[in-house]
Amino acid sequence: MGVIGRKEAFLRVFATVFLVLTACLVGFDTQTKILFYSVVRKATYRDLNALFVLVWIDSAAAAYNLLQLFRCYLWPVSKEDLTSNYKYLAWGFYLLDQAAVYIVFAANSAAVQASMFAVTGESSLQWMKLCNRFTRFCTQTGVALLCGYFASIFMAVISSISAYNLFRFYSPNQFLLLKGK
Amino acid sequence: MGVIGRKEAFLRVFATVFLVLTACLVGFDTQTKILFYSVVRKATYRDLNALFVLVWIDSAAAAYNLLQLFRCYLWPVSKEDLTSNYKYLAWGFYLLDQAAVYIVFAANSAAVQASMFAVTGESSLQWMKLCNRFTRFCTQTGVALLCGYFASIFMAVISSISAYNLFRFYSPNQFLLLKGK
Repeated sequence: MGVIGRKEAFLRVFATVFLVLTACLVGFDTQTKILFYSVVRKATYRDLNALFVLVWIDSAAAAYNLLQLFRCYLWPVSKEDLTSNYKYLAWGFYLLDQAAVYIVFAANSAAVQASMFAVTGESSLQWMKLCNRFTRFCTQTGVALLCGYFASIFMAVISSISAYNLFRFYSPNQFLLLKGK
Repeated sequence: MGVIGRKEAFLRVFATVFLVLTACLVGFDTQTKILFYSVVRKATYRDLNALFVLVWIDSAAAAYNLLQLFRCYLWPVSKEDLTSNYKYLAWGFYLLDQAAVYIVFAANSAAVQASMFAVTGESSLQWMKLCNRFTRFCTQTGVALLCGYFASIFMAVISSISAYNLFRFYSPNQFLLLKGK
């Protein structure tokens, strides 16, 4: 396990921590308020579909990063793998890393967009804002989404390392030909 | 300009076309309806902030891809560049390509999330749906967002090619050392 392997492992740990943090902060975020007279309203992440999806996607991404962390230790991609039948597995890991970061980033951005409506409302469509009443709930969600962006940045760097790990074995002169062949 | 250069150029043309298509479909999408008695309501992309942002981001990304297309023809990254002071420029293009695809993908996902509220509403928050009245407007926006995802996929492949173009020059054994040094 070289210098790259250790860097990748550290980044995956950070990404996992931030993903779990995001999922927990959103998932356990509740606030109960008495609105008018005796109408009790409880705000949870289930009120916004985007937050619900975010919790599940971030949990799945955290599990994926943990699995990849073990893979880093047990089986770092080497040049021998790329000349053998393991080539498709190495490409598979690269594509999975790319897909994971895009999905997490998209889910986070969608959740930010949905939360923006809750903060500002949309007067032209008569959607009323809610964060003036559920302040603590909205603050916690905001912190969670910030953590989600940190996790996305870590995963973007991981996907670059993943690309480096794969493409450095290829020849600089001929298309998709391995080096030293 | 090798096989990779030509592939990249084609992909950039496709990405630009789809980005322009998305921006135009969203930007020129209007529908006027008489709601009650004589209340005339005109739906445009300015009603949803996410669509407004999407038009500008997609236009900027299309312009960026066009510029990169010219760059592909005039100055393909070679090994000589990476050993000279142009190294930082080559890394800059790689990072710009990565940033571009993430920004376009996030803007598109946020717009999809915002449009989902317009289609389904959110009963728990008393946000009413609007697409039952502005059907043609919503259909056109849907098609535009689909084009936006196609553009994102093209740009994701371009960013992979960009990674390949950069990392294949590096040594497979030592960290960030150029090959054949």
